[in-house]
Amino acid sequence: MDERAALSLLADELEAVGDDTAVVEDLVITTDMLHEETDFPPGTSRYTAGWRAVGASLSDVAAMGARASAAVAAYAAPEFDREELLAFVRGARDVCNLVDADYVGGDLDGHREFTVTTTAIGRTDAPVFRDGARVGDIVCVTGTLGRSAAALELFARATDSPETADPTLERANELFRFEPRINAGLALAPHASAMMDSSDGLARSLHQLGEAGDCGFAIDSDRVPIDDVVREIDDDEGHALELATTFGEDFELVVTLPEAALADVRSDTDVAVSPIGSVVEREAGITLDGKTLADSGYTHG
Amino acid sequence: MDERAALSLLADELEAVGDDTAVVEDLVITTDMLHEETDFPPGTSRYTAGWRAVGASLSDVAAMGARASAAVAAYAAPEFDREELLAFVRGARDVCNLVDADYVGGDLDGHREFTVTTTAIGRTDAPVFRDGARVGDIVCVTGTLGRSAAALELFARATDSPETADPTLERANELFRFEPRINAGLALAPHASAMMDSSDGLARSLHQLGEAGDCGFAIDSDRVPIDDVVREIDDDEGHALELATTFGEDFELVVTLPEAALADVRSDTDVAVSPIGSVVEREAGITLDGKTLADSGYTHG
Repeated sequence: MDERAALSLLADELEAVGDDTAVVEDLVITTDMLHEETDFPPGTSRYTAGWRAVGASLSDVAAMGARASAAVAAYAAPEFDREELLAFVRGARDVCNLVDADYVGGDLDGHREFTVTTTAIGRTDAPVFRDGARVGDIVCVTGTLGRSAAALELFARATDSPETADPTLERANELFRFEPRINAGLALAPHASAMMDSSDGLARSLHQLGEAGDCGFAIDSDRVPIDDVVREIDDDEGHALELATTFGEDFELVVTLPEAALADVRSDTDVAVSPIGSVVEREAGITLDGKTLADSGYTHG
Repeated sequence: MDERAALSLLADELEAVGDDTAVVEDLVITTDMLHEETDFPPGTSRYTAGWRAVGASLSDVAAMGARASAAVAAYAAPEFDREELLAFVRGARDVCNLVDADYVGGDLDGHREFTVTTTAIGRTDAPVFRDGARVGDIVCVTGTLGRSAAALELFARATDSPETADPTLERANELFRFEPRINAGLALAPHASAMMDSSDGLARSLHQLGEAGDCGFAIDSDRVPIDDVVREIDDDEGHALELATTFGEDFELVVTLPEAALADVRSDTDVAVSPIGSVVEREAGITLDGKTLADSGYTHG
């Protein structure tokens, strides 16, 4: 059974599974396990790893439209190096500080492979789920897409050209850190009909929102906010669009809302909120410039 | 740096570290990573693994005197077997049900070794910390000690004698599951001056409470509630006492409180609460029948 099949099995068993977080009373809770082989390419600093791992869980909290309260991490490695451990904690704490959450520690475990499990909790009285998109709503994404794809390319280049690795790695690490969209999520929540994060890629997010809300999407490629760094790294425009739509791991929000609410949202957050298309009937499918957008994206290991 | 040194480093960095859970507003949060090699001996069923892993985090919530709200688990394995995964979820859910917590799912990850990270949250307006023991208080433990030590011995016997393994394994698995002491923790909390769980063994718990509260303990070996199963498995009484005091992993509560409060506690919980000695001045040390009780116990891998 692969991971998607296993997740689907669990969704049948546990009613709380199937959204970005579980909801318990006024709390949202999410946990994510990441490990070196699939999630932290060679050259990822422990500072970046701490930031990114905790940030991924905070992004799930943001996707529910919740305020972030706190995060913990379980850190497992073959050995505990003082500088690495402190760098990890600093990264974890810095990303929490950015969204007014408390980083409150966690657990340590000896383990053959560097592995991190992060858990974040948040609070909201009105969580936004994946299943509420209404035909006629617009669909928006926060920020820009493609930063993580560009980071991975830079990590690979640094490995291939060790003589110029340092500045490349620094840039890659910077791109690999991100601001969890708590603030944008709070601005969007009162108006959003459906919301999730883009961690598996825009295409897969749209398919998940479409399945949950029994709707389709008509997306306009010109309006997809591709990060400038993607074009820097790959000047083929078609390839850039593909990276931005399918690569994922960017931890932006994908949200549906009435077009009339956009001005209010924008007055409540400094984060860019870009309309990229509209919610359509299920039968119309999920399309990019009128052509079917496949349900392809990153499958997290 | 070994795990204890690393934990001590983190305690300096993060003020919330150093108790059974972190405290954030009215919430307590704890996370634990367990993995096959060090935590689940051969013969541990996935049902037991789910129960025990989630139970370990719930035990930390109990040690703060908090009500248990919810738990999540990240489950990593080389492959996702339907029956194993469902058994794990059932174990996790059953231990949550036992203490009125919601098991709300988690994450899946492909991983070379079976690894589980559990996180539990609870609520309390008055958490009980490790540092409040007062000279003259009595020190008590809940339930009995030595069940996990006995379970490990039975797991080993089953491996050595495959022909009679089945009933032995069943017994071992049963002993390896435990009731997190949420109910006893809630009964103790209004009276307790200090509390923690015994996951690292009674001896180490007393040393940690002594260091946190700047006190000593005088323990009477006759009053240590050794589980009957320990004597079944090892009829050397001295060895049984050693297993009960140093082996750990029993997830009972170790608590200090005024003797006068014991009757009230007992009327509020069905769990046995056994006085085993008293809180004394720091200079008097930590003693068992008047002899120094070493700070030895299980170091979690």
